[in-house]
Amino acid sequence: MKHFVLGSTYIVHLEPGEKIIETLKALCERDKIGFGYFHGLGAVREAELGHFDPITKTYSWLPLSGPYEIAALYGNITVVEGKPFIHAHAVLGDRTFETKGGHLREAVVSAVCEITLTRFHEDVGRKKDDGTGLFVFDLKP
Amino acid sequence: MKHFVLGSTYIVHLEPGEKIIETLKALCERDKIGFGYFHGLGAVREAELGHFDPITKTYSWLPLSGPYEIAALYGNITVVEGKPFIHAHAVLGDRTFETKGGHLREAVVSAVCEITLTRFHEDVGRKKDDGTGLFVFDLKP
Amino acid sequence: MKHFVLGSTYIVHLEPGEKIIETLKALCERDKIGFGYFHGLGAVREAELGHFDPITKTYSWLPLSGPYEIAALYGNITVVEGKPFIHAHAVLGDRTFETKGGHLREAVVSAVCEITLTRFHEDVGRKKDDGTGLFVFDLKP
Repeated sequence: MKHFVLGSTYIVHLEPGEKIIETLKALCERDKIGFGYFHGLGAVREAELGHFDPITKTYSWLPLSGPYEIAALYGNITVVEGKPFIHAHAVLGDRTFETKGGHLREAVVSAVCEITLTRFHEDVGRKKDDGTGLFVFDLKP
Repeated sequence: MKHFVLGSTYIVHLEPGEKIIETLKALCERDKIGFGYFHGLGAVREAELGHFDPITKTYSWLPLSGPYEIAALYGNITVVEGKPFIHAHAVLGDRTFETKGGHLREAVVSAVCEITLTRFHEDVGRKKDDGTGLFVFDLKP
Repeated sequence: MKHFVLGSTYIVHLEPGEKIIETLKALCERDKIGFGYFHGLGAVREAELGHFDPITKTYSWLPLSGPYEIAALYGNITVVEGKPFIHAHAVLGDRTFETKGGHLREAVVSAVCEITLTRFHEDVGRKKDDGTGLFVFDLKP
């Protein structure tokens, strides 16, 4: 991972073999980024997508293997229990250009991944929501 | 809906049952947001996607029901006849991770929807374009 | 193409028949934009998507024809050999709302394309990466 900071924007280049979520989390922890959002493009080889069932309140997971283009990637950064927490969703395109989409648990870069991340200098936390069982933005009403 | 404002960015949390477009429109109206753009992720239960046919100049609509992940969501805010106008496109992933994509007319949150919205302090309007029949950005040439 | 500049954000309206990548490149060249990123929505008639195979280090290409909604579009702008270089990925939805996704080589607007582009006042270059054969961000380690 290499990065360059312009104002409040991080320009991030991930290399083959790097995990996108893990690497962004480490960057946010190092630079104490407590709120931000990012977009990315590139290509991954392994990835895991999730789909949340609001009835059972559980995720189902789809492990993917093989070359995928990151056709869309958007995520936010918050703080949970003092650590950066990455929430990202993505659309991945396979070699036939068919797509799969959902919650992105993790993805391993195959060729390159280019990210622009906008950081803020205040933190946003998350708290457990009893209704859905999810950790949601802890915003004042 | 809860939100928190950091500079020119709104961090928005939508709750189960809330309509994404309607709720953003009300927020923009309340805070007099006359131009901006947003991105989001989360999960919805009902949604309606549109596809514009440039030959017939009409939209076809696809109502969707069931849990969908918002795999991608991007929209802009302008002002039409004094009211905020939301133009959004989205990719939605079903429980098999297959996706549908197009113009997003509306979607009802199932579990959560997290949005970052960048506002501007000038307005951008729209005007009817005779060629396409659409309301397009009213920008000076 | 019409555009309006608010601070460091370009609001861009592309008209039927205009090529998205070519038009953005010309705008960036004219205004000497050496780094930035953009998002867009709208509809296109012809488009070409690419998928990179990290084993063979080559792209396969999918030419598309017919009305497609731009369900997601994100790209970045850098400078290669003194010229703006656009790297964009997209998800396109057809009239049945099925999607194709990958690297976006080019697309021709059918009805409209609305873009928000954030520019920076420093340049980011690219350099050949021997491992992948791609031109990657030229960032200091």
